[in-house]
Amino acid sequence: MNRVVIKLTGKLFSPENVKVLMEIADIIIEHKKRGLKLAVVVGGGETARKYISMASEAGVSLGWQDILGINASRVNAVLFSALLGDYAYYPIPTRIEEFIHAWNLDKIAVGGGLQPGQSNNAVAASLAELLNAELLINATTVDGVYDRDPRIDPNARILKELTIKELKNVLSQSYAPGKYELLDPIAISIIERAKLNIVFINAFKPYMLKSVLSGEKTYGSWVIP
Amino acid sequence: MNRVVIKLTGKLFSPENVKVLMEIADIIIEHKKRGLKLAVVVGGGETARKYISMASEAGVSLGWQDILGINASRVNAVLFSALLGDYAYYPIPTRIEEFIHAWNLDKIAVGGGLQPGQSNNAVAASLAELLNAELLINATTVDGVYDRDPRIDPNARILKELTIKELKNVLSQSYAPGKYELLDPIAISIIERAKLNIVFINAFKPYMLKSVLSGEKTYGSWVIP
Amino acid sequence: MNRVVIKLTGKLFSPENVKVLMEIADIIIEHKKRGLKLAVVVGGGETARKYISMASEAGVSLGWQDILGINASRVNAVLFSALLGDYAYYPIPTRIEEFIHAWNLDKIAVGGGLQPGQSNNAVAASLAELLNAELLINATTVDGVYDRDPRIDPNARILKELTIKELKNVLSQSYAPGKYELLDPIAISIIERAKLNIVFINAFKPYMLKSVLSGEKTYGSWVIP
Amino acid sequence: MNRVVIKLTGKLFSPENVKVLMEIADIIIEHKKRGLKLAVVVGGGETARKYISMASEAGVSLGWQDILGINASRVNAVLFSALLGDYAYYPIPTRIEEFIHAWNLDKIAVGGGLQPGQSNNAVAASLAELLNAELLINATTVDGVYDRDPRIDPNARILKELTIKELKNVLSQSYAPGKYELLDPIAISIIERAKLNIVFINAFKPYMLKSVLSGEKTYGSWVIP
Amino acid sequence: MNRVVIKLTGKLFSPENVKVLMEIADIIIEHKKRGLKLAVVVGGGETARKYISMASEAGVSLGWQDILGINASRVNAVLFSALLGDYAYYPIPTRIEEFIHAWNLDKIAVGGGLQPGQSNNAVAASLAELLNAELLINATTVDGVYDRDPRIDPNARILKELTIKELKNVLSQSYAPGKYELLDPIAISIIERAKLNIVFINAFKPYMLKSVLSGEKTYGSWVIP
Amino acid sequence: MNRVVIKLTGKLFSPENVKVLMEIADIIIEHKKRGLKLAVVVGGGETARKYISMASEAGVSLGWQDILGINASRVNAVLFSALLGDYAYYPIPTRIEEFIHAWNLDKIAVGGGLQPGQSNNAVAASLAELLNAELLINATTVDGVYDRDPRIDPNARILKELTIKELKNVLSQSYAPGKYELLDPIAISIIERAKLNIVFINAFKPYMLKSVLSGEKTYGSWVIP
Repeated sequence: MNRVVIKLTGKLFSPENVKVLMEIADIIIEHKKRGLKLAVVVGGGETARKYISMASEAGVSLGWQDILGINASRVNAVLFSALLGDYAYYPIPTRIEEFIHAWNLDKIAVGGGLQPGQSNNAVAASLAELLNAELLINATTVDGVYDRDPRIDPNARILKELTIKELKNVLSQSYAPGKYELLDPIAISIIERAKLNIVFINAFKPYMLKSVLSGEKTYGSWVIP
Repeated sequence: MNRVVIKLTGKLFSPENVKVLMEIADIIIEHKKRGLKLAVVVGGGETARKYISMASEAGVSLGWQDILGINASRVNAVLFSALLGDYAYYPIPTRIEEFIHAWNLDKIAVGGGLQPGQSNNAVAASLAELLNAELLINATTVDGVYDRDPRIDPNARILKELTIKELKNVLSQSYAPGKYELLDPIAISIIERAKLNIVFINAFKPYMLKSVLSGEKTYGSWVIP
Repeated sequence: MNRVVIKLTGKLFSPENVKVLMEIADIIIEHKKRGLKLAVVVGGGETARKYISMASEAGVSLGWQDILGINASRVNAVLFSALLGDYAYYPIPTRIEEFIHAWNLDKIAVGGGLQPGQSNNAVAASLAELLNAELLINATTVDGVYDRDPRIDPNARILKELTIKELKNVLSQSYAPGKYELLDPIAISIIERAKLNIVFINAFKPYMLKSVLSGEKTYGSWVIP
Repeated sequence: MNRVVIKLTGKLFSPENVKVLMEIADIIIEHKKRGLKLAVVVGGGETARKYISMASEAGVSLGWQDILGINASRVNAVLFSALLGDYAYYPIPTRIEEFIHAWNLDKIAVGGGLQPGQSNNAVAASLAELLNAELLINATTVDGVYDRDPRIDPNARILKELTIKELKNVLSQSYAPGKYELLDPIAISIIERAKLNIVFINAFKPYMLKSVLSGEKTYGSWVIP
Repeated sequence: MNRVVIKLTGKLFSPENVKVLMEIADIIIEHKKRGLKLAVVVGGGETARKYISMASEAGVSLGWQDILGINASRVNAVLFSALLGDYAYYPIPTRIEEFIHAWNLDKIAVGGGLQPGQSNNAVAASLAELLNAELLINATTVDGVYDRDPRIDPNARILKELTIKELKNVLSQSYAPGKYELLDPIAISIIERAKLNIVFINAFKPYMLKSVLSGEKTYGSWVIP
Repeated sequence: MNRVVIKLTGKLFSPENVKVLMEIADIIIEHKKRGLKLAVVVGGGETARKYISMASEAGVSLGWQDILGINASRVNAVLFSALLGDYAYYPIPTRIEEFIHAWNLDKIAVGGGLQPGQSNNAVAASLAELLNAELLINATTVDGVYDRDPRIDPNARILKELTIKELKNVLSQSYAPGKYELLDPIAISIIERAKLNIVFINAFKPYMLKSVLSGEKTYGSWVIP
């Protein structure tokens, strides 16, 4: 596996998760040294939610709330870039062209959102398509895609492998900023048309990322295009 | 009416339509002089289709086909900007921030597509939301939204007014580059969340644009948010 | 008074202060409509501190901690720009040249930090010098410059007027990111060489800003160049 | 031969020539892998002509017609970049500095025109000078420089080798946008002052390009500085 | 007269000419206040010559010598912009698109050279064409175009009016960087195709500029298109 | 030693020093080929002083005088970049982010000043901190730091090694543009917080630079963090 796009949940970017972030950065550097080409998209997390909430209270439109979420996700991207040191592409990409630019220069671009009305997952999917990635790794807050809502149903279990059609059945999303879960319809449509390989893993268990980057299929939910 | 976003179909940008383009530009300039604030999004038209088709033949991914379509739509934007003279914002915006920038500086930004996987209609809808536009004018190839497909059913008639829900029932789209019609799901979702006012008119009948900009509701299909 | 630079403490940018921010934005818009030219520099506040602290825990250098603080302050700038609507210059300036650009175009540029090792107060002072501002308004967390530390000494009182020399005697700063108070030595040196007029007011009491912008000298500590 | 600038005629960028374009891209990639440093300038071709003609009909000045031609040539550059994949510098250079940038980063910059009043051949010549190129390959629509006009005189023959002085005698150009042939006076003057080596080959016969890049002098017209 | 492009000789930018520069800036500001739209192109002068000479000694190519001359001319542009204060567009344009941008925003763009192999006069001519200027004022070191070389022939006299054809007969240029005089062939060709009105005046006699901007034809040599 | 930031005095950039500049460029290229990562900051020298003096005479503020000095230093940076050929990052960085960008791409960025009120030494110190440099080489006009002013006291001698505290005792600076000597307080404060290693050598004796880059401690004054 040589070409990978990683989506990191914004929930990682909280003071209590610094050690996890450092571990993830080290795993990525290690694989970069071995020749892996990769790009990283990070979510906005609690910072995004804070600013969206403030903007909402101030009566700012949902479009501008998106812009705030995007800018917040970029601060996360700066932090993660700082952890990657010389391996990172800097400054933070704010257009999809810059991600391509960084990729071709063999640097790890770490970016956040790009445009209002577009989830970070859609950015990651679009990148995976443009960069001809072999795998899109969606590192989220759960161990994979459950067959039922694990917060409600204790019998919910991880689906080891599923088709894109099955994935669509599982998912249900709303479009309010900062609330996109797993994958929104736009991301799904890009994934479908580009026939992307995706795996959902738990970002808070970095050994899962390490395993996936090593070419193993031990963890996570794998979506068959 | 003071704040308007106009989406012009890319089909206007063919040698046989130069006179129509000039007429549209004159109407826009005339209303700009009277204090109207506006932004314009143009489609890629036949140039986009040509490059997408060439890229497709060369085995280039759909994402890169989108990028070609976007770049083609920007050439259309340059042509239309040249027709607007000093009233235009130049250079052509390539990010949504630049549209906002131009708007705040009271210049007419004319842009094309912005990102792969995002239709020009979605760009226009997103702009209308961010710029707090009172109306999104979708100037397309037909006189409005028909209750049935007018190419098949001769009894098809224009809907003078319809709800966003009714609009969704009418529409059906595919996601291949250059094939978006009227409005794709992403554009629809932005329109819904932002409660935008939209009117669909025929771009090839500039008197319709003139009428709409004058505040009349004589032509087109009006979508009630 | 026609040319003003305002420095807003980053502490304003917390969920509990949204109403204050809105009030400040309204006051600024109101004076902009009357012909005031102005630029705004905002601090990084709690968001900056959060990221600096995370970076510090991760062993990132102070220089990169500054960069994180700068990026955080820019999110605050986006939020404040959103409140200013069409009056704001957008996107957020990231170089001093962009502030000048916005100023000359008669738009309100709202920016944050610009460079590691440079406080937001130094940015504001540098701007005031370059833009030939008649007044630099430093809206901070206290009502002005005290003759003693008000947190320690209950008899501390606001100095209504003081020379730059007296100000220097009062101040003592450290250079760690996010900890600059009132004015650091770099800001002081620019203020001295440019012979700037400054007033320190309480950002959390917007009537003070309103009063100052109206040309009154009722509130705050005024520094005589 | 290690440092080469290639000028590709815009006439290649038509649907019927996709296979030729792919072949050329493959040849370039193959030589890039072997360590060749190169930059590519593409013409505007039929797309440029279409927009120039539309602009002309609309009464737009020749300067703006040039700008349209430049923008059209950039769409060709995007298409060709897509064919080069990771080897390409992206986004498309719009300033000569970006070509230098790409070159120093060891990526293949593919660009079009840069400025009104300047032919793509002048861009290529200027680049060859700045990049200290050993050879400027002008891939055009004919097999080389003829001693007479081959469209008129059936006895016209290719000049295998000619001095820059002889070349100047052969050439005669007009300055209308999109009509530059072989080399305009500006390109000639740069070629003379920089003492550039040039070869004219037929772009539609990719084996000629392959042969030239392999260091052979079998095909084309070689200009001795 | 409402739309003017001014070319200022770089020879103005020497310590002994500060007062002249200030006078010119004041005249320009005065006419700007009355509604004149204008753009300014400045030459590189002695700074350009110094760097070109250093680069030449170091064996740097003529193309890079041009780049040094361009960069030197931009420092002159910064100085002149500083004299124009709020009326100037800042930062200095480095692409022709930025000149158009500044013009449309009703700011005075002051720029220098743009590209190697292109004289500042060609830049000014190209701008005059794109901006649809009514007059190109070429403020040089002499009072106008002489019928003979005034340095050699004491009977040389200023031509009050001449055709572009007559101008071409008078002029003879070389292409070495920093040595372009009056107008080079590229500038001439743009002037011809765009049918520009030009007047040559003496930059060191600011009353000539004042007179020309006031609509008088008292001074200088006027070229009839 | 693998990571170095070099500050070159602007005094090098005069016609009489071209040979020295070429020698320095050759030494840097030689070490770059061996794997050294480096960034270079150059001063404004006599060109900066000339423009600052002109601006001062014209009554331009000290802030704008700084901007002129910065732009002058960038012309020096272009000249030095031209000497580095393909090894240089081009265009010249104008933001600290671009220096980081160039560094990560393994190219030699040569820049000048960045912001008014900030010396080139502060830029170099800030870069050394951000790039995690092992050594900051300050190539100035003297052989090192003297214990007394060598222009006054003939018994002044070079300090081979000194603490940052001792350095501070030696130095005394003023803040007027173009007059910063050795290190200003801002640079000092960054050096202190980042615990940078610094050596002061004579730029006009390139063998000193060669020696230092080779890892020797034979020449210059070494500051112990």
